[in-house]
Amino acid sequence: MIEIDQYLAQKKEIVNRALKECLPDTGPKAVREAMSYSLEAGGKRLRPILTLAGAETLSCDDHDVIDVACALELVHTYSLIHDDLPAMDDSDLRRGKPTCHKVYGDAVAVLAGDALLTLAFELLSRYGLKPGRAEKAARIGSELGKAAGVTGMIGGQVLDLEAEGRDLTLLEIETLSAMKTGALLKASVICGAIAADAGSKELELLDRYASKIGTAFQIIDDLLDVESSAEALGKPTGADQDRFKPTFPAVLGPDEARSRAESLYNEAIMALTDLNRPVELLTGLAKKMVFRSK
Amino acid sequence: MIEIDQYLAQKKEIVNRALKECLPDTGPKAVREAMSYSLEAGGKRLRPILTLAGAETLSCDDHDVIDVACALELVHTYSLIHDDLPAMDDSDLRRGKPTCHKVYGDAVAVLAGDALLTLAFELLSRYGLKPGRAEKAARIGSELGKAAGVTGMIGGQVLDLEAEGRDLTLLEIETLSAMKTGALLKASVICGAIAADAGSKELELLDRYASKIGTAFQIIDDLLDVESSAEALGKPTGADQDRFKPTFPAVLGPDEARSRAESLYNEAIMALTDLNRPVELLTGLAKKMVFRSK
Repeated sequence: MIEIDQYLAQKKEIVNRALKECLPDTGPKAVREAMSYSLEAGGKRLRPILTLAGAETLSCDDHDVIDVACALELVHTYSLIHDDLPAMDDSDLRRGKPTCHKVYGDAVAVLAGDALLTLAFELLSRYGLKPGRAEKAARIGSELGKAAGVTGMIGGQVLDLEAEGRDLTLLEIETLSAMKTGALLKASVICGAIAADAGSKELELLDRYASKIGTAFQIIDDLLDVESSAEALGKPTGADQDRFKPTFPAVLGPDEARSRAESLYNEAIMALTDLNRPVELLTGLAKKMVFRSK
Repeated sequence: MIEIDQYLAQKKEIVNRALKECLPDTGPKAVREAMSYSLEAGGKRLRPILTLAGAETLSCDDHDVIDVACALELVHTYSLIHDDLPAMDDSDLRRGKPTCHKVYGDAVAVLAGDALLTLAFELLSRYGLKPGRAEKAARIGSELGKAAGVTGMIGGQVLDLEAEGRDLTLLEIETLSAMKTGALLKASVICGAIAADAGSKELELLDRYASKIGTAFQIIDDLLDVESSAEALGKPTGADQDRFKPTFPAVLGPDEARSRAESLYNEAIMALTDLNRPVELLTGLAKKMVFRSK
């Protein structure tokens, strides 16, 4: 029986070390500092850990997939830097610290985000240069591109900006959430699985698991934004309400929202039962993503 | 004997058609419109044409390299959108039209740039999914990442921002130019050559050609910024002087700058003589890049 907290701590350590190593050691200092500031500002490392866990479930070692895991975190971090910009959400605080543009200025923050996104794909390409990996790298790059682009994360951010001050239907919020956060969470699992030579049936089941758990995760995020203290979250709370952003609890009410998250959790676990693999890692991660207080 | 103007017109047409086709047809309309606005705002398509010409010189057909060529133009266009942002160069006009953020707002412009960069690498990954191309895609992605990242284009943009109002030495300007514009121009040729299965000696010669011609191109750009009319260029002139940006003519004087560009042109052509391939395309392109009035 794996102790999930211990697993998370151990993998976080591995991811943090690898992220540090993948940052460039030449080029102008200002942008490299900004990149490393945002990358090392904490964070749960949920996406790269999902990648490692997805791969491990299919018997693939960490060191055969760590570059892919890092690419996911680089994309996530770039998106946070750009989302926080004055032109976008205009946030001063992130993971308990001043946001990138507050420390380094708007211009360097834009460029640091650009550089992290570029680095993510460069890292994937370098992963693909190792023997026997080129084809997997192409498939992973294609998945990551779709998940991070206009039909995924970026598209979701546009919908989010457009939704401010408007009432959305449940379906619209589900779409927004699936694009803005769900797509990259799903890609995290799927890219790890591709690196682990998953078969198509395995990919299908992991896709279902990851979709369900991604939405559940967003519902809990919305609930915590309403219910938690800023200190516990490391970022201002009530931000969604203040900006009249549509959220799951706003449409469903908090109780119904929580019960929906728990149903999605159960459906995610169900998808794993047909996998015929040891699923305690992915089950444990799902539990941590849904039953959490920050 | 190839008529170079006819070649350019023909290839521009092929590139424009391919770019139109690679844009996503789902996802929020605002960001897709902004992407296509900036992508179709004109432009010489110099980078993708260099890619096609590099490949053609090594006997590779357009349709075997067009995805790579498009990726280069997507990266170039994203960089223009972000460079024009108020946080950066704060430009109102580009290629004779209002800049992306002037039309679509800062938030959508940031995201449209992000989306074009993401799409570039997604396109390369899809290129790599075709038989026999996966390894080349990994090598091309790695080159493109390096050229577009902190040690290349993004790094150069940071140096450029830092240089405003400061006097730079010739060496500093050369470094800045090699990173900001040179790296992507060089990658354009090199990525086309990799797609065409270039050998290491061929890559080395094309690298030398592209480095020389990249610097020459930037010198002429600086000269045109001082000497041309806004109407001819399609963007405000004197912008570099107004912002006290360091330029080649500012350090060398206009005559010495032009004569240096011409020397670099000659050295670029020299590098081609050892290639043992038909070089009239690359020679013609070099001539157009240096002896131009806009």
